[in-house]
Amino acid sequence: MTKGAMLYEGKAKQVFATDNPEQVVVRFKDDATAFNAQKRGNVDLKGEMNNAITTLIFEYLNERGIQTHFIKKLDEREQLVVKVDIIPLEMVVRNYSAGSMAQRLGVEEGIKSPVTIFDICYKKDELGDPLINDHHAVFLGAATYEELKDMYTLTARINEILIELFDKMNIILVDFKIELGKTADGTIILADEISPDTCRLWDKDTMKKLDKDRFRRDLGEVTEAYVEIYERLKKVLDK
Amino acid sequence: MTKGAMLYEGKAKQVFATDNPEQVVVRFKDDATAFNAQKRGNVDLKGEMNNAITTLIFEYLNERGIQTHFIKKLDEREQLVVKVDIIPLEMVVRNYSAGSMAQRLGVEEGIKSPVTIFDICYKKDELGDPLINDHHAVFLGAATYEELKDMYTLTARINEILIELFDKMNIILVDFKIELGKTADGTIILADEISPDTCRLWDKDTMKKLDKDRFRRDLGEVTEAYVEIYERLKKVLDK
Repeated sequence: MTKGAMLYEGKAKQVFATDNPEQVVVRFKDDATAFNAQKRGNVDLKGEMNNAITTLIFEYLNERGIQTHFIKKLDEREQLVVKVDIIPLEMVVRNYSAGSMAQRLGVEEGIKSPVTIFDICYKKDELGDPLINDHHAVFLGAATYEELKDMYTLTARINEILIELFDKMNIILVDFKIELGKTADGTIILADEISPDTCRLWDKDTMKKLDKDRFRRDLGEVTEAYVEIYERLKKVLDK
Repeated sequence: MTKGAMLYEGKAKQVFATDNPEQVVVRFKDDATAFNAQKRGNVDLKGEMNNAITTLIFEYLNERGIQTHFIKKLDEREQLVVKVDIIPLEMVVRNYSAGSMAQRLGVEEGIKSPVTIFDICYKKDELGDPLINDHHAVFLGAATYEELKDMYTLTARINEILIELFDKMNIILVDFKIELGKTADGTIILADEISPDTCRLWDKDTMKKLDKDRFRRDLGEVTEAYVEIYERLKKVLDK
């Protein structure tokens, strides 16, 4: 496998072509941004930790029947993945109130929801990735109602698996966002990453935040949180 | 019927008790507000026109099987209605892009949607009536999933009837919002008003806006637009 030209650079990752048109290399950066890139910074080891954590989680999900874009980890910062067309919707799942939802609804953070809350946001930086609904997504041509139904089913299943996994790590999975992509044959699979950048993870005993909120809210010990998640994950998975 | 104490004063209406605990009087004011009351003004005749227009539309809907809170018009500014508990959700229907949806999605106004778009907004002034989704509504205890299903069905039926009615008036029903209420026995019925304050109405030939956007956007001829809608409605309904 030969790494080719950079195809895309996002806030936290770069994507490179390979000599196989159906595969790309994802490189995880230490750059951190928040609030639609109004806040910028750098978190030591973040790229390596997110690469390692995503690798373990995607392998774990794959063993449980979830199709992902992940093929293999290449080195500390890079992984080889299936090339997909990313669906321009962030699928957000919330088990507890927090972040933008708590603000929007005017409620405290940390309220356990009696139902699983799914949000979809339109991936469009210049609009600030706004919350939308299914009708808007169809209007925009981002997905059909049928695809959305499948996307929610997939997202709900991933949530079930991850709640249980993080529970074993003594962590509450407060919320997370995933991105889905379409393969050449139209199958919708899990893409992007699952890491402390994309999840809210609270220690069950201390309620300490072990995720990107440490960076967003200047709570300190940011690298330590990412390393902590990686260490607990390795232990639980016996890796 | 004796009019009693004022129970509630909103931006455009007042509600008074009557000697019947199951009925209240709604009084339509000329006060106009926009952008969550950041813009305030007064539109001559607005109260009278909205009372008259809502009366004609609610009677028309009622004849077509839609249960409403409307009982009878009392005078130029007042109507007697069934007392309901207002569900704290604005049900918004959009047949074309406009207003906050056009802004949110970064699209032009006036694009006909291939599907009927339903938005729900949480009625909470201090939060700016944010767009939410069904899961948020259930989390907030504003409605159950079953109630929401019924609410969308009712709203869709009202949209069908109104598209046809306004079409006869040579008007495009771009979008509108309604509020629903629960009667003492739990039935969900149409409440509030349907008027140029709550609809976007564009003349089919000239695309001239005949609704509250004339006030919001300082387009002038505001009263004239409300009177025009009333006159066309009377003519089409032969009243």
